[in-house]
Amino acid sequence: MSEYIDQDQTGASVGIVEKQFFTFAAPPGRLKLEGGASIGPLTIAYETCGTLNKDKNNVILVLHALSGDSHMAGYYDPKDTKPGWWDIMVGPGKGIDTDKYFVICSNIIGSCSGSTGPASINPETSKTYGTHFPLITIGDMVETQKALIDHLEIKSLLSMIGGSIGGMQVLEWCVRYPDMVKSAIPLATTTQHSALAIAFNEVARQAIMADPNWNDGHYYSGKKPDMGLTIARMIGHITYLSDESMRLKFGRKLQNRSALSFEFGAEFQVESYLQHQGNKFIERFDANSFLYITKAADYFDLARQYGSGSLVKAFSKCKSKFLVVSYTSDWLYPTYQSKEMVKAMKKNNLDVSFCEIDAQWGHDAFLLPSDRLDNLIKGFLRSASHET
Amino acid sequence: MSEYIDQDQTGASVGIVEKQFFTFAAPPGRLKLEGGASIGPLTIAYETCGTLNKDKNNVILVLHALSGDSHMAGYYDPKDTKPGWWDIMVGPGKGIDTDKYFVICSNIIGSCSGSTGPASINPETSKTYGTHFPLITIGDMVETQKALIDHLEIKSLLSMIGGSIGGMQVLEWCVRYPDMVKSAIPLATTTQHSALAIAFNEVARQAIMADPNWNDGHYYSGKKPDMGLTIARMIGHITYLSDESMRLKFGRKLQNRSALSFEFGAEFQVESYLQHQGNKFIERFDANSFLYITKAADYFDLARQYGSGSLVKAFSKCKSKFLVVSYTSDWLYPTYQSKEMVKAMKKNNLDVSFCEIDAQWGHDAFLLPSDRLDNLIKGFLRSASHET
Repeated sequence: MSEYIDQDQTGASVGIVEKQFFTFAAPPGRLKLEGGASIGPLTIAYETCGTLNKDKNNVILVLHALSGDSHMAGYYDPKDTKPGWWDIMVGPGKGIDTDKYFVICSNIIGSCSGSTGPASINPETSKTYGTHFPLITIGDMVETQKALIDHLEIKSLLSMIGGSIGGMQVLEWCVRYPDMVKSAIPLATTTQHSALAIAFNEVARQAIMADPNWNDGHYYSGKKPDMGLTIARMIGHITYLSDESMRLKFGRKLQNRSALSFEFGAEFQVESYLQHQGNKFIERFDANSFLYITKAADYFDLARQYGSGSLVKAFSKCKSKFLVVSYTSDWLYPTYQSKEMVKAMKKNNLDVSFCEIDAQWGHDAFLLPSDRLDNLIKGFLRSASHET
Repeated sequence: MSEYIDQDQTGASVGIVEKQFFTFAAPPGRLKLEGGASIGPLTIAYETCGTLNKDKNNVILVLHALSGDSHMAGYYDPKDTKPGWWDIMVGPGKGIDTDKYFVICSNIIGSCSGSTGPASINPETSKTYGTHFPLITIGDMVETQKALIDHLEIKSLLSMIGGSIGGMQVLEWCVRYPDMVKSAIPLATTTQHSALAIAFNEVARQAIMADPNWNDGHYYSGKKPDMGLTIARMIGHITYLSDESMRLKFGRKLQNRSALSFEFGAEFQVESYLQHQGNKFIERFDANSFLYITKAADYFDLARQYGSGSLVKAFSKCKSKFLVVSYTSDWLYPTYQSKEMVKAMKKNNLDVSFCEIDAQWGHDAFLLPSDRLDNLIKGFLRSASHET
């Protein structure tokens, strides 16, 4: 996700939070994955903010996107200069009000921020999994989240919210566990990747796998495929922005120069920006996780999996109330895809609100401060609470 | 450019053509480049079709794009299975009718199909230039084309036509040599790259430079940076298509399989298509040429160079009659950029026709068979001939 946001300026904070861990090792101790393999024990890192009420009916699940983690809000340590990734949304009086709701966010499996992924130790070999980690799906991510919710002895979720790949998890939850999800907010997402989205992911994956340090995915004891991951992140970042936002933010402005250099290397600001994003990313993210999570997103296809090709059929067992949000300049998951989703939900007589927010910032808009989104979410959650 | 077109089905052919060479070594034997360096002698590969008339007033210059060459139409050898890259447009009775016009196309400098570029021998060292080749501009390309036209003792060009980077050369010619260009057809092009276009080019360049075989550009005696160039080409291809064209052509169709493989590697058709395009490209194109030509395109900025930032001023000395063409689904050089160009031309009271062609094929549409484009070009050239 974008690093655009000046996350120091986000108002009241939930304060100090703690990274918690849940090990999913109950009998049979392994999770059977959709791809056929099984894996276990699995560790899930998570964070909670707010207080679980007595009736346990104030729970909101936050689902993160490709490069997110369980640290959604607040600070691990008073000395931290940056809060969790969605601190603008989650906190006292914010869009997701921690004075009212008990908010949970867990790191998805396949990722690299505490939950089991390709950089974890394979208990069978005592070595890192690398690409011996099995391919996972959005459904597999949801299964581990369900295990966490069971572990917390929560029977029902007031709401869940996520953007992008987080939105796919929201949709998968609603289809898989229709009786558990009272309401849901898929943001800037889709029920299936377009050929364009798959194409960008595949080129990014090829960039990682072309890096000789990738070494077929077994690089944890040596040099990491930093160049490949940098390029993959740069490709990703282009798709998160928009023609308009890049024009407004960078245009053709030069970096530190008044004239062209007539040399290779970053000289336009947009080039420096992308390289900076790529370089920052390799410090915190694992290249194999990028491969696994993007592949899971490419595989996601609600209509294929739950409707024999029909999206209307796929939503037929859903019971949740929905707020679907898209952004005008999001060309990765354009509004027409959200509209198809809304249409299929309505054909099932589901209670659906849809809002296309006018924004120039492209796909990343869902992570940026927006009174419009805050108010939409507040109103939707208030209404969902009253109906509980 | 795209390999979509079934180029065997393009009607009457100009027949057998020959690759010709012109060495630009007249005193001082070197070309002073815009970046400050000088280089020489320079060889220019070119092709002509049709017959130069007595008054030498039936000349049309075709300018090729990033990966094109001088071989625009016909066949080098009767056994060739594919004709030149724009055979659908250039030939007897075609959009650019070789029964009427004398058509010239030369390979741009910096490229790798006969004209001097980074893979050529540097006469000062007797070794390949590699990245000792100086950075070039669209203006430098035009200067060598001007030298070729002088060499052919042609004083005036009835018209010139080019798409994408070829269109940039068209515009540069009209501004640099206003008295020589009677009419001009810039297709699917822009007067300056947007931040988005620069971003894609930079990521593609980074992919090449990250390939260890690139070796700072000095790889001609060893392994070539094939992986890097493959990825660069895949990125390029995504930008030449469109969300709609990819949806129609590929959607989420799988390659040779009925179910997901749960393995990495190309399994969606769009992935196989891009890899195939990348693999074909490395057989015919030089990675360094990709770097030099994309950088020249990023540098191109008519308003900066000729108008102190004003596009209206940049066109103020132009005299050509224009036909500007854009495509609805071209998101690399969107229609709004063509409209800005047309507006600036009109403010200079130039004779400008503008047409936005409704096409789903993205930027590559200008290379695809189109009766609409053929007829537009035929009419425009007929009118330009009558005025001569």
